[in-house]
Amino acid sequence: MLIGAIEAGGTKFVCGIGDENGCIYDKIIFPTTTPDEVLDKIVTYFSEENIKAIGVGTFGPLDLNVNSPTYGYITSTPKYFWQDTNIVGMLKEHFSMPIGFDTDVNAAALGEQTWGAATGIDSCIYMTVGTGIGVGAIVNGELLHGLIHPDMGHVFIKRHPDDLFPGVCPFHKDCLEGLASGQAIEQRWMKKGQELTAKEEVWELEAYYLAQGIANFILTLSPKKVIVGGGVASQQKLLPLIRKNVQNLLNGYVKHELILKNIREYIATPKLGSDAGICGSLVLARTAFFHAEK
Amino acid sequence: MLIGAIEAGGTKFVCGIGDENGCIYDKIIFPTTTPDEVLDKIVTYFSEENIKAIGVGTFGPLDLNVNSPTYGYITSTPKYFWQDTNIVGMLKEHFSMPIGFDTDVNAAALGEQTWGAATGIDSCIYMTVGTGIGVGAIVNGELLHGLIHPDMGHVFIKRHPDDLFPGVCPFHKDCLEGLASGQAIEQRWMKKGQELTAKEEVWELEAYYLAQGIANFILTLSPKKVIVGGGVASQQKLLPLIRKNVQNLLNGYVKHELILKNIREYIATPKLGSDAGICGSLVLARTAFFHAEK
Repeated sequence: MLIGAIEAGGTKFVCGIGDENGCIYDKIIFPTTTPDEVLDKIVTYFSEENIKAIGVGTFGPLDLNVNSPTYGYITSTPKYFWQDTNIVGMLKEHFSMPIGFDTDVNAAALGEQTWGAATGIDSCIYMTVGTGIGVGAIVNGELLHGLIHPDMGHVFIKRHPDDLFPGVCPFHKDCLEGLASGQAIEQRWMKKGQELTAKEEVWELEAYYLAQGIANFILTLSPKKVIVGGGVASQQKLLPLIRKNVQNLLNGYVKHELILKNIREYIATPKLGSDAGICGSLVLARTAFFHAEK
Repeated sequence: MLIGAIEAGGTKFVCGIGDENGCIYDKIIFPTTTPDEVLDKIVTYFSEENIKAIGVGTFGPLDLNVNSPTYGYITSTPKYFWQDTNIVGMLKEHFSMPIGFDTDVNAAALGEQTWGAATGIDSCIYMTVGTGIGVGAIVNGELLHGLIHPDMGHVFIKRHPDDLFPGVCPFHKDCLEGLASGQAIEQRWMKKGQELTAKEEVWELEAYYLAQGIANFILTLSPKKVIVGGGVASQQKLLPLIRKNVQNLLNGYVKHELILKNIREYIATPKLGSDAGICGSLVLARTAFFHAEK
């Protein structure tokens, strides 16, 4: 069965054709311009294939409440053209097939849980550290939903005593994203992360903050696996520093050998690499398809 | 059907006899001395009644993994006599009936979700602020479990810039419990909370920290209801301050009218009062009973 997958990001859209077993046969990438322009490209791309369902993992915030009149909308995003965009509705106008819908990071968590680093595990988080910070989660085998959906990139954390940087989050200033996103790195050090690879203090501070976020998620969600991806996280030296900081912060309090002894296995990189999101969208589509068949 | 319920706390055990509809017919309270002494009292109390199941909500950390050889144990608690205590096993020696088992705060969340402030809601958190800070959670209609169980009282938060108190947590110093538990209040202000009712700055600071914890839980779990109980939280002026601080911290980012407009309904007190835990233990027992019947 052919399935369409969409990963909607703030700077680019990735669309793919795959199947229910996670094989991706084709991919296309285009910039996140306006909803109409993007939709045109999506329609052209998918119309050529005999797909049976579409899955969408997208930047948010989203309305995921199927009983709400604005279900399927991207709601109050700061991305101006995309505010209150009925993305599921727009797709439904062109494709009369089941459409799965969730956040980009929930989709990535689902992808990794289905075919990646958390296969066979009923609880995990997927954290991406890039321009922003996002985290998706699976709890008791299900995607974490609630009042809306989690937005864990914005949790509040303890400041490093020597850090005077005010933070870049337009809503919260010095939340996790405000202090540790790619954007925060660039504004704090006046250079992009890629140009700072050799500067130890950049990654020590980065790990100090990201590890606090992860420690908080461990204390709150007790995930069985923590997967860390994204452009900033691809810095080779970062993950070992994060692991060390998480152990130091928790300080033996969470007594499980995965944390005390096997933290390299516990805090890991995405096995699907940059395909985590698109694979997750395949799963969203597959679930929507089988749900509709019932 | 008569059911036995146990709420095991660090200073006292509450045992109750009730039924599957949440009626409590009798309760008894005794101090948390040693496991053997406590067990004697539990056995004497429950042996007189024709109960069909027992539910235990207890201080932790616990082993909740039914496939583990130490399932049913209180594991690495700092309470010396209770370290590695097989509480479910001890009960099973005396009572050949189904025994439900979870953390005290998960039980309280379950009680409130079944018969209290979160009835009919599939997602909520229950936070208790007393000597320590504990939080239980229901996600997608199920108790939150994972690698172990959540222990959200210990999340890291942003310090108040004027607060020089080092924190009382033996593991993390200035985590949420370290800065905002009843014990932290007593050590910071050299008086018990009850004697500080008139001192505005105590409750301003307390709300500053508790609201950060709650904001982090909202951003992480997106609960549909936040229930705040416990001795410290019973200070009349505290909850309104917490609500105001949560709104200020989130700063319009989580756009839901429950947070933006109806926060008094969203962040509420336990409807079951101090019976939340014991009612939750009735639900744990009921679930164990019906599970065994299948």
